[in-house]
Amino acid sequence: MATSEPRATGGDQDPNSANLRPPSTTYEYAWMHGCTRKLGMKICGFLQKNNSLEEKGRLAGQKNLLSCDNSDRDARFRRTETDFSNLFARDLLPAKNGEEPTIQFLLEVVDILTNYVKKTFDRSTKVLDFHHPHQLLEGMEGFNLELSDQPESLEQILVDCRDTLKYGVRTGHPRFFNQLSSGLDIIGLAGEWLTSTANTNMFTYEIAPVFVLMEQLTLKKMREMIGWPSGEGDGLFSPGGAISNMYSVMIARYKYFPEVKTKGMSAAPRLVLFTSEHSHYSIKKAGAALGFGTENVILLSTDERGRVIPADLEAKIIDAKQKGYVPLFVNATAGSTVYGAFDPINEIADICEKYNLWLHVDGAWGGGLLMSRKHRHKLSGIERANSVTWNPHKMMGVPLQCSAILVREKGILAGCNSMCAGYLFQPDKQYDVTYDTGDKAIQCGRHVDIFKFWLMWKAKGTIGFEQHIDKCLDLSQYLYNKIKNREGYEMVFDGVPQHTNVCFWYIPPSLRGMPHGDERREKLHRVAPKIKAMMMESGTTMVGYQPQGNKVNFFRMVVSNPAATQSDIDFLIDEIERLGHDL
Amino acid sequence: MATSEPRATGGDQDPNSANLRPPSTTYEYAWMHGCTRKLGMKICGFLQKNNSLEEKGRLAGQKNLLSCDNSDRDARFRRTETDFSNLFARDLLPAKNGEEPTIQFLLEVVDILTNYVKKTFDRSTKVLDFHHPHQLLEGMEGFNLELSDQPESLEQILVDCRDTLKYGVRTGHPRFFNQLSSGLDIIGLAGEWLTSTANTNMFTYEIAPVFVLMEQLTLKKMREMIGWPSGEGDGLFSPGGAISNMYSVMIARYKYFPEVKTKGMSAAPRLVLFTSEHSHYSIKKAGAALGFGTENVILLSTDERGRVIPADLEAKIIDAKQKGYVPLFVNATAGSTVYGAFDPINEIADICEKYNLWLHVDGAWGGGLLMSRKHRHKLSGIERANSVTWNPHKMMGVPLQCSAILVREKGILAGCNSMCAGYLFQPDKQYDVTYDTGDKAIQCGRHVDIFKFWLMWKAKGTIGFEQHIDKCLDLSQYLYNKIKNREGYEMVFDGVPQHTNVCFWYIPPSLRGMPHGDERREKLHRVAPKIKAMMMESGTTMVGYQPQGNKVNFFRMVVSNPAATQSDIDFLIDEIERLGHDL
Repeated sequence: MATSEPRATGGDQDPNSANLRPPSTTYEYAWMHGCTRKLGMKICGFLQKNNSLEEKGRLAGQKNLLSCDNSDRDARFRRTETDFSNLFARDLLPAKNGEEPTIQFLLEVVDILTNYVKKTFDRSTKVLDFHHPHQLLEGMEGFNLELSDQPESLEQILVDCRDTLKYGVRTGHPRFFNQLSSGLDIIGLAGEWLTSTANTNMFTYEIAPVFVLMEQLTLKKMREMIGWPSGEGDGLFSPGGAISNMYSVMIARYKYFPEVKTKGMSAAPRLVLFTSEHSHYSIKKAGAALGFGTENVILLSTDERGRVIPADLEAKIIDAKQKGYVPLFVNATAGSTVYGAFDPINEIADICEKYNLWLHVDGAWGGGLLMSRKHRHKLSGIERANSVTWNPHKMMGVPLQCSAILVREKGILAGCNSMCAGYLFQPDKQYDVTYDTGDKAIQCGRHVDIFKFWLMWKAKGTIGFEQHIDKCLDLSQYLYNKIKNREGYEMVFDGVPQHTNVCFWYIPPSLRGMPHGDERREKLHRVAPKIKAMMMESGTTMVGYQPQGNKVNFFRMVVSNPAATQSDIDFLIDEIERLGHDL
Repeated sequence: MATSEPRATGGDQDPNSANLRPPSTTYEYAWMHGCTRKLGMKICGFLQKNNSLEEKGRLAGQKNLLSCDNSDRDARFRRTETDFSNLFARDLLPAKNGEEPTIQFLLEVVDILTNYVKKTFDRSTKVLDFHHPHQLLEGMEGFNLELSDQPESLEQILVDCRDTLKYGVRTGHPRFFNQLSSGLDIIGLAGEWLTSTANTNMFTYEIAPVFVLMEQLTLKKMREMIGWPSGEGDGLFSPGGAISNMYSVMIARYKYFPEVKTKGMSAAPRLVLFTSEHSHYSIKKAGAALGFGTENVILLSTDERGRVIPADLEAKIIDAKQKGYVPLFVNATAGSTVYGAFDPINEIADICEKYNLWLHVDGAWGGGLLMSRKHRHKLSGIERANSVTWNPHKMMGVPLQCSAILVREKGILAGCNSMCAGYLFQPDKQYDVTYDTGDKAIQCGRHVDIFKFWLMWKAKGTIGFEQHIDKCLDLSQYLYNKIKNREGYEMVFDGVPQHTNVCFWYIPPSLRGMPHGDERREKLHRVAPKIKAMMMESGTTMVGYQPQGNKVNFFRMVVSNPAATQSDIDFLIDEIERLGHDL
């Protein structure tokens, strides 16, 4: 239904403000904005008049912009008070006279976004303002998610934008530790804004010349860091680590059994894949999707730190061969999801060479450590891999999505995936069509994921990524040192974590004297979920938990957020103790 | 290498300006900006002084923002002249005192982007400024794509942003007709900017509560438009039509042979997929990837308009069964890539019902027509499909990427793809975890593709999409009427196109009298590539060409760009004749 009356909450104070600061600080922009929004309807008449006067003045005043005098420079960037309640999407470009409303609308959106950015880094705001699904679905103070036949005014659209951010989660907040991907990198953000504005597709050089070259150069640089000679090889950015891992299984199969591409899995013997019991579930998903079957994804035992035991790999290879199956592929994890464990790549590579198997390294989470002279030894042997997954959107703080699949052998990606679609990849184009990437991918259209990463690399340099990574690892060691002997904590595994993952149980006072056994286990299993629930309700911080194997629910703390400091680690521990003390 | 001297071309006039307008128009913002950039270094000292005075004034002046007086409102949005040559990424948030440089940097980026947006819709600018890969790699006037160890100044980063756009392709330009995805929707753009700022992940409600609900509601609305009772069913947004189509094959296999998930393809008989010879190559790619083999993807014959002949489908099903194979899946294309053909879904559905096969409709390109009361009859029968691919990023003008896989049976996506990863999808969360979407996907992390689409739907209403689609189809009919009897043109197929695809040969005068035969064919085959190459060199417009079957290279015109008008169609034809006349 068309409406010129904004029905939502933009005018109210943001509930995410944990502390109400005095109005004289710079933190109140959005709040102040809310205020003007309410006033907006009233003063619009006046301002519109002003606007049209200004407009005339502006047009008249466009004498000689070559002079670049300061008044003109200001004028071109001035946001004017615009009455968005009478404007609709149809009034924006490409509409006739759409330029001014378009710019004003985009500047208004940017105002909302920059206010959000500022608040994201402000520790006095909450990480989230939690609501249950049914609450949001019922409509929060007029925030209505339903779609309708009729357009809404741009004023309502702006309110919707504000509300969307208000009820979301600030993943860049210094106290957001919930996922492997966290933080809000300003350069990466600018890169994404530009990418959206360019709105193109990676499949051909023809329509993404600059981005295709950036991808090529960046992948080469990544391959150099892996240690492949001269950075030779191949690769692509894919929509995430799971798809990158899926690529690795596909190309391994194509390498050893190329006829599967045309004849299907029946052309191959029973093929077996190996991966750690601690590895990411995407290897199993790939096994299911690609027609291997999850039963043919053999899970490898790990030591108590979550690292694959090479002898177990060899034993399972021998066992599979004795059963008449054909071992094809081994995944070594560089930075496991829960423990942050690095499998011993060199020892695994020895076995792969001995039995002629494809070695993939899933460095989705740990690949970033290649940027650090201090920590890259944890991936030593990675240069022996046939393929590598590396997600800059995790440890390196690049905005989502940014995942690379890197392959040592050139040409095999195209061999595996090429279908030579004539309508897209014409051989008779006027430029060197080997730059077209589409036929290497399982996708057709492919989003531009490279630019933000390339821009961040330009802006930080390799040393900037290194500093970020070293700092995150230092912070997690700070946490480890803080809690390893602290009353009420038990570590899930002993010793300094290899990555930023610190896994621990918080034992509330009521459980501290209890003898180990089923009752304690059951009670302890419920502690982390309870604390997490309260944490989300209070909105002060976020950290993940999960069980693993026979271990009951524990917290998994990870640090990839560049905004986090020791004080935020302290805050997390204080908060766990505050919320969990009486459980 | 660190540098405080911007080494690039930001200061030069944009070569994309086809006409040099007098400097008194509003179109010269970016150019003017280039000018100030060069001046920037000189006047910085002065302005910096000014800035600090202003800054003091601003801080002192923050008395009572509640009054919302106009001077304060202006102040909060003022872009100040900032010397970015001494600022680096490390000076931005979360750095101490990073707020002001962060906002100024983002506003500077927005200035670049809004200038680009304005130029995109300006017909006096070129669509592209073509360079060969080696030219861009060698460095265009200092635009250096190489990455280094040391950071670059923010001034250089801003120059890199300008150059990236300068050497790219304006896919929103009114004369860009090269792909099925074109146009630059301002609401969609704002939606993407917000999405990047929120920087979260669709896999759990926990960290994407609003987006997860928007996805759910939007998918339901799309299922209603398909015609499934009460919009019931399931679905996901995926990273593109190829992946959506891959989902359809996976779930079809899971429906009939669920044991393949655990045991692999060897647990099933030889399965066969059917799709049109005109269908998108992603069905074959899925066949290769998922272990069916491309030989088991049977191509169906089409009529001269590119529509599947149902009798051929039935004959091929019978043939496959006689050979002992098991027909599993039929893809009906709703809007083929080249001809824009709609397969007769109802007749295909009859056959699928008769033989108990999964019916998928690939509406990546044509799905948008469901929004049009005038054109939706072309998809009639789609309500009988088991699954549907529908890409809002094509015909509906949503920015890339935005593709939905829609499924009639609830639960089957999760059944097919679930691996129950405990670390992510904990069953003991405090909210209703059926809202978590991650376990339905083959991805783990999943980009937020929904928001821009949801926002566009809010802003335009269903009727807005309908108007856009009707207008594009009208325009293509205008083109068809213009050239069907025009001298020097031959249509690739007869009759009014079903979609916006108009396929034609341009016959240069030198070939017009030539008898039909191999020589003419060979010569004609080279015409479209030659014209396209000249078109790209001159940068005036872009349209695709390709061969199809035994037909030599022809132009495929498509209209999905909301900025296009009849004058742009006229321009395209004039340009083809201008460039092709002497071939």
